[in-house]
Amino acid sequence: MKKWVPAVSGLAAGLLAATVFFADFSSGPSGSASTDTANKNKSNAEKVYVPFGEKDEYYLMASGGHSGQMFVYGVPSMRKIRTIPVFSPDSATGYGYDQHTKEMLGNYTWGDLHHPAISETNGEYDGKYLFATDVANSRAAVVNLETFTTRDIIDVPNTSGPHCAAFVTENTEYMFLPTRFAVPIGSKYESLDDYSEKYRGVMSAVTFDEKNEKLNIAYQVALPPWSYDLSDAGKKMSKDWAVMTTYNTEEATTNLEINASQADRDYIVLFNWKELEQKVKNGEYEDVDGQKMIFPEKQKGGIYLVPVAKSPHGVDVTPDGTRFIASGKLAPAMTVFSFEKAFKAIENKEFDGERNGIPVLKYESVMEREVNPENALGPLHTQFDDKGMAYTTMFISSEIVKWNPNTGETLDRVAVQYSPGHAAAAEGDTVSPDGKYIVSLNKLAKDSYLSVGPSHPESMQLIDLTGDKMEIIQSAPVDPEPHYAQMIKADKIKTIPIYDIDKKNPAAVTKAEETRIERKGNEVHVYGLAMRSKFIFDAKAKRPDVIEVNEGDKVFIHLTNVDLDQDITHGFGINKYDLNMEVQPGQTNTLEFTANKAGTFPLYCTNFCSALHQEMTGYLLVKPKK
Amino acid sequence: MKKWVPAVSGLAAGLLAATVFFADFSSGPSGSASTDTANKNKSNAEKVYVPFGEKDEYYLMASGGHSGQMFVYGVPSMRKIRTIPVFSPDSATGYGYDQHTKEMLGNYTWGDLHHPAISETNGEYDGKYLFATDVANSRAAVVNLETFTTRDIIDVPNTSGPHCAAFVTENTEYMFLPTRFAVPIGSKYESLDDYSEKYRGVMSAVTFDEKNEKLNIAYQVALPPWSYDLSDAGKKMSKDWAVMTTYNTEEATTNLEINASQADRDYIVLFNWKELEQKVKNGEYEDVDGQKMIFPEKQKGGIYLVPVAKSPHGVDVTPDGTRFIASGKLAPAMTVFSFEKAFKAIENKEFDGERNGIPVLKYESVMEREVNPENALGPLHTQFDDKGMAYTTMFISSEIVKWNPNTGETLDRVAVQYSPGHAAAAEGDTVSPDGKYIVSLNKLAKDSYLSVGPSHPESMQLIDLTGDKMEIIQSAPVDPEPHYAQMIKADKIKTIPIYDIDKKNPAAVTKAEETRIERKGNEVHVYGLAMRSKFIFDAKAKRPDVIEVNEGDKVFIHLTNVDLDQDITHGFGINKYDLNMEVQPGQTNTLEFTANKAGTFPLYCTNFCSALHQEMTGYLLVKPKK
Repeated sequence: MKKWVPAVSGLAAGLLAATVFFADFSSGPSGSASTDTANKNKSNAEKVYVPFGEKDEYYLMASGGHSGQMFVYGVPSMRKIRTIPVFSPDSATGYGYDQHTKEMLGNYTWGDLHHPAISETNGEYDGKYLFATDVANSRAAVVNLETFTTRDIIDVPNTSGPHCAAFVTENTEYMFLPTRFAVPIGSKYESLDDYSEKYRGVMSAVTFDEKNEKLNIAYQVALPPWSYDLSDAGKKMSKDWAVMTTYNTEEATTNLEINASQADRDYIVLFNWKELEQKVKNGEYEDVDGQKMIFPEKQKGGIYLVPVAKSPHGVDVTPDGTRFIASGKLAPAMTVFSFEKAFKAIENKEFDGERNGIPVLKYESVMEREVNPENALGPLHTQFDDKGMAYTTMFISSEIVKWNPNTGETLDRVAVQYSPGHAAAAEGDTVSPDGKYIVSLNKLAKDSYLSVGPSHPESMQLIDLTGDKMEIIQSAPVDPEPHYAQMIKADKIKTIPIYDIDKKNPAAVTKAEETRIERKGNEVHVYGLAMRSKFIFDAKAKRPDVIEVNEGDKVFIHLTNVDLDQDITHGFGINKYDLNMEVQPGQTNTLEFTANKAGTFPLYCTNFCSALHQEMTGYLLVKPKK
Repeated sequence: MKKWVPAVSGLAAGLLAATVFFADFSSGPSGSASTDTANKNKSNAEKVYVPFGEKDEYYLMASGGHSGQMFVYGVPSMRKIRTIPVFSPDSATGYGYDQHTKEMLGNYTWGDLHHPAISETNGEYDGKYLFATDVANSRAAVVNLETFTTRDIIDVPNTSGPHCAAFVTENTEYMFLPTRFAVPIGSKYESLDDYSEKYRGVMSAVTFDEKNEKLNIAYQVALPPWSYDLSDAGKKMSKDWAVMTTYNTEEATTNLEINASQADRDYIVLFNWKELEQKVKNGEYEDVDGQKMIFPEKQKGGIYLVPVAKSPHGVDVTPDGTRFIASGKLAPAMTVFSFEKAFKAIENKEFDGERNGIPVLKYESVMEREVNPENALGPLHTQFDDKGMAYTTMFISSEIVKWNPNTGETLDRVAVQYSPGHAAAAEGDTVSPDGKYIVSLNKLAKDSYLSVGPSHPESMQLIDLTGDKMEIIQSAPVDPEPHYAQMIKADKIKTIPIYDIDKKNPAAVTKAEETRIERKGNEVHVYGLAMRSKFIFDAKAKRPDVIEVNEGDKVFIHLTNVDLDQDITHGFGINKYDLNMEVQPGQTNTLEFTANKAGTFPLYCTNFCSALHQEMTGYLLVKPKK
C-alpha cells in the first residue's frame, strides 16, 4: 500500500521546513498490493537472473566517486564485474606501482570521479573509450575499453574540480570541463574579499587524440566566478552547442548553503563550441601560462546565459537535440528550454542585459514549459527512453517521475530507496536511447541491506521500463559513491583476449634465454619473465629466481608475462618493500625502487595463476652497506 | 550433458603431462539435462533474490587478496555490501588519510589479505570481531563488527607473509601466524647457500585484548625453514591443539615449482598451544629482539610432525574436533587423520625419528583413511555441513566433491567455473555448521561474465546444499582476489547506528560555539564541525567555513560530525592537496598536513549528505612566504 508520509526531513533540514517522503515500506519496491507480492517478486527474480552460459545485456559504467575509480556492472544482473583504477592507486592490479601508471598518477593518492562518458560516433556510444574527471585534484582521464585500462591522465590548470564533466560531443570532438569551484587563475593566493574581481570559473575544452591515446586542452574560457555543476552536449540540430548549469551566481564567499540560494534565478551557460573553436583559430584569446584563454567580456560572442530556476543541479539535452531540460533543486520544477527558440532569440538579440560581459537571453524567449509534478521535490537529473519520454530523479521525495517533455504531463512515478542523484538509462545519453532499463543511483541506502555500521552503502536500483508501469526489479548496494553511470549495449564493447608482447620495447623479453640482470653503476636492471609457475630473472644464474643487489642501489625490474593465455595474469610483490605490480598475458611492466632496506625479502606472484602458484616465489637479497 | 574432457592443461603445465577437466559447457552449472534448464534457472533465480524489505540470511566475510581489504557480501543474493579497508588506504572512506588510520597503516600502501577469521566463543562465531593477516607486508589486523572498522594492525617480526593464518581457537585465545616464506630471524641479509642453517619459519602466537582492542604477540616458535601454508585450530576434544601444513620441506632455494615437489611427503605440524603457553610461563624460551622465541630443538615438547602427501595446501579440522583432513595438491587424495590416534601415538612415542629436532609421528599411527575420488584432481580445502559431511575443492578438475569422512565414500560432485581455491560453508568453521550453503571461491572466471579485457574477474559461486544434489544457484564476479571467506548468520552481527560524540576527546566539538582555530607557533589547530550542509571551523569568524594559514604551517583539522543521524556521513576533501577524510555520525577525526603549497584551495564535503551537499564547501587559503 502506498502512503504519503509527511515528515520533517533530516535530509533537507535547513532547506524546507517540512517535506514529503514517498514511502512504500509495506509492499516491496514496486508498490504492488501485498497479495501480488509473491508473484511479482518471482517475476522480478527471473528478470535479473543471468545463469551460467549467458551474459548480461548491458555494461553499466559507473563512477566510483571518492574511491577515484570506475565500477563496471552487468545489467540486468547488477553484478559488479570490475573496478577500473583511474585516479587512485590500486594494489589489486598494481596500478600506481609500476613505472608507467605511477608516473601517470603523479603524486596523487586519490581522486573523486564523478561523471563517466563513453566516446560517441554520430551521437551513439561507440564502445571505444571512457572519459572521466576528478573533482578532488582537477584531472581528466581516458580509459581504453579494449583492455579496460586507463591510458592517459592530465591535470586541468586554472580549475578546481571539473565536476561539470565529462560529456562528449556527437563525435567525441570535445569534452567541456568547467570548474566546480571558482579560483584565481593559476590557483594563486587571493583574498576572498576580492572574489568577484580576482576569482574565475574557468572551463577547459578538452580533445582526445585517439591515435596516441592522449588528452589535450585545446583552449580555456574564463567564465564568471560561479560554480559550474553539470553540462551536456547538444545533439543533431544542436550538435555545435553545449549547455552547463551554474549556481552561486550570487558570488557568495561563505555559507553557500544560505548565501548561494538568495537569487531567484541562476543561469545556464549556452555556448557554441564551433564558434569558440573558430575564435581560437582567429587568435581571439590571451595566452595565460601556456593556455589559450578566451575572456568572454573581451573576446565576445558564442556564449550566452539563460536564466533558470535557482540553484539547478542538472541540465540534459533531449535525444532529438531540440530541447534542454534543467531542474532547479531548490525550485520543485523541471524547465524545458527550446534550442530553436534560443537560436532565434540570439539572432534577434532578445537580451536582458549582460552578466560579467556575457549576454543574458530573455527567459521567456527560450523557455518552452515549466513542469511541476504534484509533490515531487528536489528534481535533479533527467534521462530519456526510446519514445522521447523523460525520467527525472527527485532527490527529496525519493522517486523517479516519468513525464512527457512535449506536454509536461506526468505519466508514472516510482519510489526509490533513497534520495536518487542521477539515473542512467540504457544508451541514455545517445541520440537513440533503448528504453528498456533505467538505473536509479541512490545516495542513501539506510536500511536496505544488512547493516555494516553507522555508514551504509549507497545503492543502485534497476527499473524495468518495458511494462505499463515502471518497476524496480533489482537493488544493488555499492561502494562510495555512485554519481553517474552510462549503460551501453554489451556487443558494442570489443575487448582483446591478450596483449601481444611488444618486441620493440627494450624492456620486454620473450624467452628464458633473453633474461638477464645488468648493472650500470648503482643502477640494476632486471629483464625477467613470469610464466606458470616461476619467475626467471636470469636463466644463466645459479638461482634464476633470485635478485641480489646492494643497499642503496636503484633497481628496475622489467617483467614480461609470457603466458599468452587469456586470464592468466601474474602479480609480482616483494615482501615488506610495499611493492606490487601486475603483468597481464603478454604485458611488460617495470617496477622501479631504491633498495634502501638491507636484508632478505621474499618475492612472490600475488595473482593466483596455477596449481603451483604458491611455489612461484623467489628472493630479493639486499646486501648491507659496509 | 556431462563429459570428461582429457586435455593437456595449461593451468597445470609442468605439473602433470595430461590432466582431466570436468567440463560441462552444455547444460548450465548444475549439470542438469538441457530440457530442465529453464525450470531450474527459474527456481535458482527465486532462491537468490532478496526483494526490498527483506535482508540476506548470512554475511559472507571475504578476503580481498592483494587489494588489502575485506569484502562483505550478503548470502544468498551474493551482493557485495561493503569494502572494509584493512591493509591498504581507501580514499572512499578516508582510511589511511586521517591521523589515526594513517598511523595504523604506517608507511604501507597495500597488503595481501588472505584468510579472514571471525572471533569465536565456545567454538561458535560470536560476530564481534574479524581477524586478518597480510602476506605482503607481514601484518595482522582486527576489525570491529559493531562498526565494520579496522581497530588495530601489528607488524609480525621475524616472519615473511603469515599466509597460514588467521584461524582462531575455540574461545579466541590465540591466532597462530606461521610464515609462508622462511627468512633469517630479523629478516637480515643471509646467503641462500646457508638457507638450512640461517633461515627459519617462525610462527607467532597472537592474542587479542578485547578491552583495549589491541593485538599482541604472546610468543614465537622458530620452526624449520619451510613454507607454512594453512592452519586450523582444534575443536572440542582437540581444542588445545592446532595444525599447520608445510611445503618445501626439501629446503629448496630456487625453482620451487620443481625443487619443492621432490619429496613424497611433507609434514603437518601438530602442536599443543596450552603446552607452549606453559613453556613460556616456565621461562623455556629465548629472548630474540624482544620476542619470546621457542626453539623446538632446544625447548622440546608440544610440537610434532605428521607426514602427509606431498605439498599439501590445506588442513581442516572436522566440526566435532576428532579429525583433521589434509589435501596434497600434488597427490590427488585427501587424507583423514585422527586426533585420538595422534594423542595415543604421542603418548606411546610412535616416532619415525626427528626433523630439525622435532619428533616425526609415524604416518600409519595417525592416518585413518586416504580418500581419492575418481579423477578428482588438485584437492585443496575442505568445509563441512551439519551432518559432518565434507566438501573438498578440486583446483585442477574444477569441482567440489562431497564425501563422507567416516567412510571415504564420494557422495556428490558439482562442476564450478573455474579452479576453486577455498570454499566457505555457512558457519563452516564452527563446531556446528549450518549445512545450507557453500560458496566456491574460484580463481579463474574466464568466460563467465561480460569481458573486461585480458584479465578477468575472479568468481564466487553459491551452492545450495538443501536438495538431493549440490546445485549452483548464483555466480558473482569479484575483484582480486577471493582467497577465503567465512559465512556467519546475519543476526549474530550487532552494529551500532551512530557513534556517541566522544566528549573526553579534546579534539571533539559538539556545537558551533565550541569551534575555533588556534595557532601555536607554526602549528594551526582547527576545531571544526560538519553538519548538513556546512562546515564550521570558527563560528565567530567573518567566514566560518574558511581556513587561512601560512605556507609551511603544520595544520591539524579536527572535525566532528554532529549530525547524529544514521547513514549521514560527511567527507572532507581539499582540492589539489590530495587529502580526504570521513566523519561518520558522531565521529571526530583529524587531518594533519603541512601547508607546503601557497594558493587558494577549495575544500568540500566528498560524501553526498543532503540536497544542499553541493553547497557544503569552503576554502583553504595558504598565504605565500614572503
